[in-house]
Amino acid sequence: MDLTVEEAAAELNKGFQTLEILQKDPAVPVWFIYLNRPAQRNALSLPFFSELPRALALLDRIPSARALVLSARGPHFCSGIDLSSLKSISSSSEDDRAAAAEELRRRILDLQSAITALERCRKPVVAAIQGACIGGGVDLVAACDIRCCEDKAYFAVKEVDVGLVADLGTLQRLPKIVGFGNAMDLALTGRKVSAGEAKAMGLVSRVFADPAKMDEGIFALAKELAAKPALALMGTKAVMMKSRDMAVEKGLDYVATWNAGMLRSRELEEAVLAKLQKRKPNFSKM
Amino acid sequence: MDLTVEEAAAELNKGFQTLEILQKDPAVPVWFIYLNRPAQRNALSLPFFSELPRALALLDRIPSARALVLSARGPHFCSGIDLSSLKSISSSSEDDRAAAAEELRRRILDLQSAITALERCRKPVVAAIQGACIGGGVDLVAACDIRCCEDKAYFAVKEVDVGLVADLGTLQRLPKIVGFGNAMDLALTGRKVSAGEAKAMGLVSRVFADPAKMDEGIFALAKELAAKPALALMGTKAVMMKSRDMAVEKGLDYVATWNAGMLRSRELEEAVLAKLQKRKPNFSKM
Amino acid sequence: MDLTVEEAAAELNKGFQTLEILQKDPAVPVWFIYLNRPAQRNALSLPFFSELPRALALLDRIPSARALVLSARGPHFCSGIDLSSLKSISSSSEDDRAAAAEELRRRILDLQSAITALERCRKPVVAAIQGACIGGGVDLVAACDIRCCEDKAYFAVKEVDVGLVADLGTLQRLPKIVGFGNAMDLALTGRKVSAGEAKAMGLVSRVFADPAKMDEGIFALAKELAAKPALALMGTKAVMMKSRDMAVEKGLDYVATWNAGMLRSRELEEAVLAKLQKRKPNFSKM
Amino acid sequence: MDLTVEEAAAELNKGFQTLEILQKDPAVPVWFIYLNRPAQRNALSLPFFSELPRALALLDRIPSARALVLSARGPHFCSGIDLSSLKSISSSSEDDRAAAAEELRRRILDLQSAITALERCRKPVVAAIQGACIGGGVDLVAACDIRCCEDKAYFAVKEVDVGLVADLGTLQRLPKIVGFGNAMDLALTGRKVSAGEAKAMGLVSRVFADPAKMDEGIFALAKELAAKPALALMGTKAVMMKSRDMAVEKGLDYVATWNAGMLRSRELEEAVLAKLQKRKPNFSKM
Amino acid sequence: MDLTVEEAAAELNKGFQTLEILQKDPAVPVWFIYLNRPAQRNALSLPFFSELPRALALLDRIPSARALVLSARGPHFCSGIDLSSLKSISSSSEDDRAAAAEELRRRILDLQSAITALERCRKPVVAAIQGACIGGGVDLVAACDIRCCEDKAYFAVKEVDVGLVADLGTLQRLPKIVGFGNAMDLALTGRKVSAGEAKAMGLVSRVFADPAKMDEGIFALAKELAAKPALALMGTKAVMMKSRDMAVEKGLDYVATWNAGMLRSRELEEAVLAKLQKRKPNFSKM
Amino acid sequence: MDLTVEEAAAELNKGFQTLEILQKDPAVPVWFIYLNRPAQRNALSLPFFSELPRALALLDRIPSARALVLSARGPHFCSGIDLSSLKSISSSSEDDRAAAAEELRRRILDLQSAITALERCRKPVVAAIQGACIGGGVDLVAACDIRCCEDKAYFAVKEVDVGLVADLGTLQRLPKIVGFGNAMDLALTGRKVSAGEAKAMGLVSRVFADPAKMDEGIFALAKELAAKPALALMGTKAVMMKSRDMAVEKGLDYVATWNAGMLRSRELEEAVLAKLQKRKPNFSKM
Repeated sequence: MDLTVEEAAAELNKGFQTLEILQKDPAVPVWFIYLNRPAQRNALSLPFFSELPRALALLDRIPSARALVLSARGPHFCSGIDLSSLKSISSSSEDDRAAAAEELRRRILDLQSAITALERCRKPVVAAIQGACIGGGVDLVAACDIRCCEDKAYFAVKEVDVGLVADLGTLQRLPKIVGFGNAMDLALTGRKVSAGEAKAMGLVSRVFADPAKMDEGIFALAKELAAKPALALMGTKAVMMKSRDMAVEKGLDYVATWNAGMLRSRELEEAVLAKLQKRKPNFSKM
Repeated sequence: MDLTVEEAAAELNKGFQTLEILQKDPAVPVWFIYLNRPAQRNALSLPFFSELPRALALLDRIPSARALVLSARGPHFCSGIDLSSLKSISSSSEDDRAAAAEELRRRILDLQSAITALERCRKPVVAAIQGACIGGGVDLVAACDIRCCEDKAYFAVKEVDVGLVADLGTLQRLPKIVGFGNAMDLALTGRKVSAGEAKAMGLVSRVFADPAKMDEGIFALAKELAAKPALALMGTKAVMMKSRDMAVEKGLDYVATWNAGMLRSRELEEAVLAKLQKRKPNFSKM
Repeated sequence: MDLTVEEAAAELNKGFQTLEILQKDPAVPVWFIYLNRPAQRNALSLPFFSELPRALALLDRIPSARALVLSARGPHFCSGIDLSSLKSISSSSEDDRAAAAEELRRRILDLQSAITALERCRKPVVAAIQGACIGGGVDLVAACDIRCCEDKAYFAVKEVDVGLVADLGTLQRLPKIVGFGNAMDLALTGRKVSAGEAKAMGLVSRVFADPAKMDEGIFALAKELAAKPALALMGTKAVMMKSRDMAVEKGLDYVATWNAGMLRSRELEEAVLAKLQKRKPNFSKM
Repeated sequence: MDLTVEEAAAELNKGFQTLEILQKDPAVPVWFIYLNRPAQRNALSLPFFSELPRALALLDRIPSARALVLSARGPHFCSGIDLSSLKSISSSSEDDRAAAAEELRRRILDLQSAITALERCRKPVVAAIQGACIGGGVDLVAACDIRCCEDKAYFAVKEVDVGLVADLGTLQRLPKIVGFGNAMDLALTGRKVSAGEAKAMGLVSRVFADPAKMDEGIFALAKELAAKPALALMGTKAVMMKSRDMAVEKGLDYVATWNAGMLRSRELEEAVLAKLQKRKPNFSKM
Repeated sequence: MDLTVEEAAAELNKGFQTLEILQKDPAVPVWFIYLNRPAQRNALSLPFFSELPRALALLDRIPSARALVLSARGPHFCSGIDLSSLKSISSSSEDDRAAAAEELRRRILDLQSAITALERCRKPVVAAIQGACIGGGVDLVAACDIRCCEDKAYFAVKEVDVGLVADLGTLQRLPKIVGFGNAMDLALTGRKVSAGEAKAMGLVSRVFADPAKMDEGIFALAKELAAKPALALMGTKAVMMKSRDMAVEKGLDYVATWNAGMLRSRELEEAVLAKLQKRKPNFSKM
Repeated sequence: MDLTVEEAAAELNKGFQTLEILQKDPAVPVWFIYLNRPAQRNALSLPFFSELPRALALLDRIPSARALVLSARGPHFCSGIDLSSLKSISSSSEDDRAAAAEELRRRILDLQSAITALERCRKPVVAAIQGACIGGGVDLVAACDIRCCEDKAYFAVKEVDVGLVADLGTLQRLPKIVGFGNAMDLALTGRKVSAGEAKAMGLVSRVFADPAKMDEGIFALAKELAAKPALALMGTKAVMMKSRDMAVEKGLDYVATWNAGMLRSRELEEAVLAKLQKRKPNFSKM
């Protein structure tokens, strides 16, 4: 997708079926992506899985988007994958079990890829979670960079209860976030995790008193991120993602190689200068 | 071990030297494995290391075992490896240091394999821990899927204090459960960890007020697990185990390949139907 | 560096520019390494990066050093990397961008190697942290074996705010210590983490009420470590370090191979004997 | 790209700027992809890098494409990457070195992804190489499944001679094809490798006497591939690709999981039956 | 299987259904394992997969077995897996696709494990191959340590032609033996490889003029292996197996750790002494 | 070792005990490292293991060294490790088996590190091998970048015959150079490999008719290397070394990150310009 900034903005303006995407304040380089099917408790339908990666690719192009917030309309963040979308998958080509299996495998890989787009996006993505975050919702937020929730939010890796092995990333990402023991417990029992327990095990890094407070707090946090040196922010995310699956020693070599070419002395100087002059530093866009 | 269900049950009935194995309620597909040498504080002796994997292989065969509980008779869960069993190892063939080392290496691999049988078992294993859980006891529970304890329970990676490098899995599994920093602290200092701290660092996922409450709670938990769709439960455990040592991207491909063949649409449909009919779903055995 | 014990001691006695190194009590085999530029809040300068690995190599040789403490003079542990030292790096050979990048890469690898020396050191290293621990300070303590702090201490992965991608190990080691979610949060936001939150997420394993209490507590802890069987302690550290980047199964084989040759039956016997005789065991030096 | 078979075929018929794509014989489910800039010795230009993955995705959809041949028009297979395309990359945004580096990194990742599309394509790709295969040409064929050439063909990993580190896959894939020693030799010296030496070191698996013989031989080989059970062929390619970067034991588990769902008993039965009836087996399309 | 030497020998003497196992000369510590179903061209049947690992475990116990030869009765080494054995697998429990898939997966893992027993066996295994070595036969020899064949022998990774993805190790082990390019070619085309080509690509290390010459040559080779220092031989095999799937640096650490405990100075001294005294060295048994 | 160019040259001039190091022609930026104990057939003694890495570090500093040749004085390249040096290792501190094992492990790691210095050296190292290359000699050349030999040269992984498991890299590096099957054969049998067979299996890339021809040919080859763009050469070596132990996909990301900062457009332009002007390109030194 090799679009100009203007073309990307125009594409974004056309709107989405399952998402609402907006920049709340034109002066603030923060964009919001809302899951926007509140009547279905934001169940993840097939169109969602093609719209999310497209939206992220467009936002990646736009300089006014320096931090992203993934949020949801309605009282609940996400009730999981839309079972009707699974239906259409499993019913296809039942005449040949093996060919159907091969097709199912590719479809799952496609769905996974839509979630992984959150990690591939160069810009930081903050998840703001209210109400229920169930099944596929957990897969979704596990791929975000920072997770916050309000006090009444709760989480459940519910797949096992409808006869599914969770296949959109929870079983891979959750153990690295909350530890292997907690992750196994959640995935086998499907039990509810409250906001407080989620904070204690590292699933979220902040809990807000209520959704309104969360909106405020998240906007402030995203604004703060958006004001940081963009290249350093992007580099930090990319290096952490790459280092996650590498031996420590290989990760060290990787970041040395990264910084060899992408250390931006100009921003280092601006940071030092701003401190001396007791003013806010002024960093370049991406 | 290619036994029929009946043969496996008969084998189980013959009894064990170091274990007691029983199904408390024939109507409930939950089996209990008790460490059963309370006079020795359930120190892990050589026979234990051959009985545990055999018991698990038998239980794996038995459809009425849909969830397993690893528990212990007496006031303490486990005081660690039986030093007399180590003795018999180290004294063997002292006439050739190198050959003795090679033999010792193989013996350790055998002991490790007995512990790892808990992870290879397809069915979920819940550890219920009271009193002391020391040294080899920690190796043991670190290989269980869910760990719970009562309020007075405590843990200590005590090996270093008797001049040993823990070699039954603690040094490999604990860092993924409680984080590398906590694990290094515990392994170097050998200090006592209370039930509360164990919960805070993710070593256990639930703490019960006392052993009786734990018995009740664990039975309820295991019953709940046993009522879940067996194939999804088993798949979740297997995929998490395999994904633990894989890059996230490889783990995603693995679970997609798994679900391609082992997604059970029948249970998905039953789950949906039961919800609509407001009744308990009725899932097939393994 | 193939020195005798005496030569190593003599070298240590010559003193360091950025460090103070001493054995507080000749009867206690614990050595302290102090960051010793309190006027610069112990900012990490270029000489530090050559002095630290040299000091550790010397202490590794000295039998009276059975446990090490990394501490700092002044009210703050460390304010991060000295920006002037970065300056001298980035200004070199600007006439050729690519050659400068290659040189910068090698320099970063050298700096990283100085930090990694803490992990390569065979003896346990305890970090005692007061006041601020910022940027490079976090890289530094993340490579220690046990981290403790006093109640007013705080941590911040501050690099992103001066336009840098942290490249001395934080992005690689922190996720394994505090979980990937917490680590990403800290690295992107650069926010302050209090002693209490640090404890909750596993960044430190103990918090002391004030610096004086910490001095006392750390000395006691180090003394305790120093009294443990040296070879088992060293083996535990080495095996955990190697297992960190290995599949569980490979780590199990590694520790079996380690113990095949390095299990010290004498210390095992002494431990058992001392218990029977109700006296303190007397373990050999390394 | 979720097109129907008809839409995919229509797309293919629109033609390409740098490629010619055709099915030589409508009765034979083999498609040919020709590099089609003979006047430029098929130097790889920017449009090529977007056309190749698109073409492969379209051919993946089309049942009449059961085997693919990557070939070239004119006397030479490929003279490497078009330096003018590199130019346009390196000149962009010189005002900020670090941002330019970050952009360059992403562009290289995009180019790599176009080559890797050959591996991601489910159907077997045979490379037919005549004349020179230089620089980027080697990157290209190293990602094909089977490589054949004619007697006068030659290969050279030429990047080093124009001051480049080869970055489209040669340095990663070649060592696994010809061994690390041969690959290092070729990459450092940039020397010419004749068809004979290429065969000896495993770079090609067949050498034909001249281009005409090669055309014939390759068509026969591709036809043969196209007549094989499609799902087994696709599975073999996919499993080998995935196993390439896995420990043997993990690769074994992967293929067991694959076959669990995608073993096609129907084709096994047809194969056995055809043998008994002494006729050609008739396998289903993908 | 914790048998004494005598018990193991007695077990071996009971004989096998699919194998013939013998020590040709009681003075020579070499044992032969013959595939022994010549009428079925030594097709691998279900009993074979339980007999092979049992035989290897028994031979592992017996000091008079210092080198093993895997050979075959009749004109052909092995025609692959017995399709009837596959039949019994695929027909089981067709009433539930997903459960059948899970069972099939476990059965394949069992079959794989029987082959991998060749690698786990501490003693060197030489394969002596005459006539056809097809499908499962290639899986089998790929897990041996040294492969030799006679001039008329040929190899074919034939699985794809009967609609199967080879799942007993060929796709994982062959690329490391003959290179990824050659392995992909063989696995996709299923073509015949002659003894000469097999030698050229590293699939066999020696080709003998005819079966009789091979018998002689293999016996000589095995005798030579059997005369070597047993612990060094075993260590070399084990370290190469473990290093195969490790980074070079990790493999170096592994072998250093191995030799730390298992270097046998006595044999080193005997080797030096024998050289000085111009006599054959006399090494200890395992 | 942070020396100026002049200091490094002065250090080199002081001479070595086991090596001779010289620049044959001051106009040609190629340096030769000779194993220089011909009376001992260049057996590798303890001083060698400290001199080799020091020499390489010095040569790394010197701009006039753009390519290195590792060669040997006398009729044989290297007869392996000097057994007397092993002696001094094994005799140390026999009073404590475990401590001795730990010390032995560290010593082996040190010896390995001396060999690995060849890979860490940024400049290409060509090995020129005449006569025997035995045991440790194979470990040595396996770490060089390009291996050439004369027609009478032969190789043998002889360690097993003196009761040793080769521990200086052969078991790790050889399988990637000659394939796992060939490497296992050589390591278990210790058999002689002629120059011709070495070429056929990829152990050497060129065989010269006799030592004199080799001297000539190697000098020409090294000169050619020395004339190539230094940064590209160094980058190619470094990227191949790092990619050797990475998944292909990770290696691709690594080289993209490398080139992001270290692509030298100046040399690319000079290469293009020189071609147009039909003159030799003039590349910058490292």
